[in-house]
Amino acid sequence: MSYCVALKLSDGMIFMSDTLTNGGLDNISQYPKTFSWGIEGERQIFLTTAGNLATSQAVISTLSEQTKVQDERSPSILQAPTMFQVARTISETLAQIIEVTAKGQQMGERAFSATFILGGQIKGGRQRLYLIYPEGNFIEVSEENPFFQIGETKYGRPILIRGFEPNMSFEDAIKLLMVSFDSTIKANLSVGPPLDIHIYEKDSFESAHIIKINSKDPYFNMISDEWGKALKDSLATLPSYKFDADE
Amino acid sequence: MSYCVALKLSDGMIFMSDTLTNGGLDNISQYPKTFSWGIEGERQIFLTTAGNLATSQAVISTLSEQTKVQDERSPSILQAPTMFQVARTISETLAQIIEVTAKGQQMGERAFSATFILGGQIKGGRQRLYLIYPEGNFIEVSEENPFFQIGETKYGRPILIRGFEPNMSFEDAIKLLMVSFDSTIKANLSVGPPLDIHIYEKDSFESAHIIKINSKDPYFNMISDEWGKALKDSLATLPSYKFDADE
Repeated sequence: MSYCVALKLSDGMIFMSDTLTNGGLDNISQYPKTFSWGIEGERQIFLTTAGNLATSQAVISTLSEQTKVQDERSPSILQAPTMFQVARTISETLAQIIEVTAKGQQMGERAFSATFILGGQIKGGRQRLYLIYPEGNFIEVSEENPFFQIGETKYGRPILIRGFEPNMSFEDAIKLLMVSFDSTIKANLSVGPPLDIHIYEKDSFESAHIIKINSKDPYFNMISDEWGKALKDSLATLPSYKFDADE
Repeated sequence: MSYCVALKLSDGMIFMSDTLTNGGLDNISQYPKTFSWGIEGERQIFLTTAGNLATSQAVISTLSEQTKVQDERSPSILQAPTMFQVARTISETLAQIIEVTAKGQQMGERAFSATFILGGQIKGGRQRLYLIYPEGNFIEVSEENPFFQIGETKYGRPILIRGFEPNMSFEDAIKLLMVSFDSTIKANLSVGPPLDIHIYEKDSFESAHIIKINSKDPYFNMISDEWGKALKDSLATLPSYKFDADE
């Protein structure tokens, strides 16, 4: 499994992903799961992925190839006029790759599926965040709850639901994400560091600021320790259950 | 889905379960998911269940029938000499019921499966806690991490991992369970109140103290509100991420 989260903030967008991939417990590797393409000053596009590694690599490679040679840039995510068109291109690419791979294979379990979060901004438009399903359709993030999670989402969801505010600073958002990732890593062997963080500043159209968090990162380990203590302290401050006098 | 947790404490055992069952979003009912049998002063047995309702009801009914008539009490969980034998009886019953139901049906998805947590104590023995799989095998809880969860386990797991101590009081354990259930209910529509809590006091061999928590329960709602605030406060007290000066 993977764990990836993308937040849409007032100030910009943050994409965070782990790097652990596995094809069985004895076949573990590290691959980046967040990718970006852009034209400085004009557009920035980010894609983070969970699911079958071969499928997601094929999608990333196909998209990258289409951006390399000027003449072959059609359909290219670097030429699409809107983020909506970018989402369509990526979702069509994804659906095609799954269809080709799955053909002639055992159907049933959707073993070749992958899910993407697409975010970005193109000059003239607002910053947009989409969730692209393996079936090739997609949804945009809601204004009420402007974040998406993919992969092993459940362990880290309660704190996101309670802690996320769209107008929080990048610094506070990174802290929140670290807590969410820490809860996931503590509970699930298939999600692990290094963690990649891509930070895009709204209306900058400049490539992301990238932070790599390895397992010895002092800030991440401090958050992990302190969060454990803070949770215990919080529990301790809540009043205990009281049995009725007649019980 | 369901969410059920059983804790093995120094003072006894606690079983907590929700009551929501659904066969699709428009077919929602409430059924208890924790059951008990016992002979006062001699043995107490608790069973909590997640999965297919027809399967778990069939298991519960079969077990109950075998305990009603003295002559038909073989194999009966009220006659088994040890909790291990009780676990064997239940797991065999479960495997048989799934096999009979699934026969001649579409296989593939394990639609008739159910999982149980069995806890209890029989005079002369220690209190025991087992997880019974749909396949009919079972494991006992570890001394290091003496709790089991079944059903929709992931949302409420991080706080259990960090907050649970085997020597905590019943009152504190109930508080911890309420936080774990609240996190789950907040994130997942298929888990909901009323919540049932069964509390067994170690070496008492007396039937459980039962608490029913409905959606208007003042303690549960206080915990839900205060926990949300406490989480936000805890997040606020942790130092925010700091970008390097040269970034």
